[in-house]
Amino acid sequence: MKGEFELIDRLIQGWKFKQDVKIPPGDDSSAVIIEPTEGTLLLQTTDILVENVHFRREWGNAYQLGWKSLAVNLSDIAAMGGKPKHAHLSLAIPQKWSEESIIGLRDGFKALADIHEVDLIGGDLSLSKNDLLIAVSLNGIVHEDHVIRRKGANPGDVIWVSSYLGDAAAGLRCLQNNSENKGCTDLISAFSEPHPEIELGLLCAESAQTTAMIDISDGLAGDLGHILKASDAGAVLVEADLPISETLQSIAIAEEWDTTQMALYGGEDYRLLGCTGEQDFDSFASAVSRKLGRTIYAIGTITKDSGLRLKRRNGSIDEINPTAHDHFK
Amino acid sequence: MKGEFELIDRLIQGWKFKQDVKIPPGDDSSAVIIEPTEGTLLLQTTDILVENVHFRREWGNAYQLGWKSLAVNLSDIAAMGGKPKHAHLSLAIPQKWSEESIIGLRDGFKALADIHEVDLIGGDLSLSKNDLLIAVSLNGIVHEDHVIRRKGANPGDVIWVSSYLGDAAAGLRCLQNNSENKGCTDLISAFSEPHPEIELGLLCAESAQTTAMIDISDGLAGDLGHILKASDAGAVLVEADLPISETLQSIAIAEEWDTTQMALYGGEDYRLLGCTGEQDFDSFASAVSRKLGRTIYAIGTITKDSGLRLKRRNGSIDEINPTAHDHFK
Repeated sequence: MKGEFELIDRLIQGWKFKQDVKIPPGDDSSAVIIEPTEGTLLLQTTDILVENVHFRREWGNAYQLGWKSLAVNLSDIAAMGGKPKHAHLSLAIPQKWSEESIIGLRDGFKALADIHEVDLIGGDLSLSKNDLLIAVSLNGIVHEDHVIRRKGANPGDVIWVSSYLGDAAAGLRCLQNNSENKGCTDLISAFSEPHPEIELGLLCAESAQTTAMIDISDGLAGDLGHILKASDAGAVLVEADLPISETLQSIAIAEEWDTTQMALYGGEDYRLLGCTGEQDFDSFASAVSRKLGRTIYAIGTITKDSGLRLKRRNGSIDEINPTAHDHFK
Repeated sequence: MKGEFELIDRLIQGWKFKQDVKIPPGDDSSAVIIEPTEGTLLLQTTDILVENVHFRREWGNAYQLGWKSLAVNLSDIAAMGGKPKHAHLSLAIPQKWSEESIIGLRDGFKALADIHEVDLIGGDLSLSKNDLLIAVSLNGIVHEDHVIRRKGANPGDVIWVSSYLGDAAAGLRCLQNNSENKGCTDLISAFSEPHPEIELGLLCAESAQTTAMIDISDGLAGDLGHILKASDAGAVLVEADLPISETLQSIAIAEEWDTTQMALYGGEDYRLLGCTGEQDFDSFASAVSRKLGRTIYAIGTITKDSGLRLKRRNGSIDEINPTAHDHFK
């Protein structure tokens, strides 16, 4: 492998930066201008991806890892209604990684960054004795009157999600089982190259009809649990309304998977989970359809009573556990 | 170990935040207000510390690791003349680490953060199958008229450093050799708990007498090399003027270490290396002494001719290699 500084030179070769990047990579810190507007909040988030914890090398290529490492951070900015701006990418790289793989990872990162007009303005490189580690930090902006938090959901609010649930979890299962089912391709892609919902997040911020929001990273039940805890409320979900893709549906039948369990506890969808007042929901959903050509799915209701309940297809109501996937357990 | 969310709760228990932290840890992103002043630059830096690359577990305690992980980032903000503001701390933690060790690491981080009025506003936690990894991102502010870069050094400028050179490298050698020499305690402390030069950096920014600056992380020769490359200039260093601490001096005699080599190529001092016009140097040095009670050491001169030269004690002038420690080589 090349030396660190030659590798950095190669990684940033030919980059162009937007006007607000006043000092690009090459000094001790990079420097940007944040719009000096009264009430602008600077959002900051960071996420790490660790080999053999979050991913295995054989599950995909370097491009996908780069893409996903930014996607999970973009998703956090989307969940606040923010516009992402500047990213840092740091890598601890095992000796066995080729320079081409690192460039591939950078390419996947940059491809998604370009879609969302994010500038990659710095980072750090190190060797690693064992596992690849990817650490990303990302900032963004949102006006303080528009920021959407986990707290704020009110009893009666409609709970909605922005996409099918469980596809990424199913993709992971395909990878783990080395499945040759045809449908696995789409599901694996949902797991490996998630599409963070920046545009929808911005629309939520602008329309001011979203009372609370989070991105689905740990699974619907766990992430809704965070909203309920922060909002001091409970919820009822409707099993029949949980949106399941046709692909997942048909594989689930063949493989005898429980799609409700996957929808509730499967993580890594990186879609949005929001709450909207009952009186606003229809106009909000049609704005989303009109402006973004997207469907959002009502899946339940916020309640005054605490706890998370699931209304089953047979009409019974079960108490369910609002817990999430936890790497530590 | 506790679950991730319980551990996070414990890590942030009782924290207080300054007024500009509008959304503390607990949402998808944290949010801060950056002074909406025309010309304020937002500095952003990130550094990762990897077990068995940057440190070994037996070299120190968790508190020192936490301290150092922030120190190396603060040092990057100091080198731009910035005021550090908000940090994120992410950890990938091997199963064998106890919860108390993680709290200890957080304590070391927070202790240094408190000294420099930095708020720790977020981060990420993950397990790691093998090595501990610490990823820190830090922002800061500086006015665009005051920011100090690597480029800007002019022929004739005095090159100065803000402290003794080589102590950290000597401390590392003490650790590697398991040395029982008494003086090692101080040197190891220079390696394990470096003191980033935030105050001096701010004074440099304010006085506008520093033409170029960098922090000494990879070693004097390599870091000066970055200034020379960015400034399109060369330099002559004076061997007799390289400041060596008495402690290092005396151990070096006992152990037959070459202090000049250690001063030139030993990294991790995390002190400042700056350039100041010859006509300004005396007034700058006395301002540093008057306002901070500190000495800065003139160690050479920027030249029009490229290359890095060392004027030896015997009067001969040697071409030396402006290369730095490189984990990749």
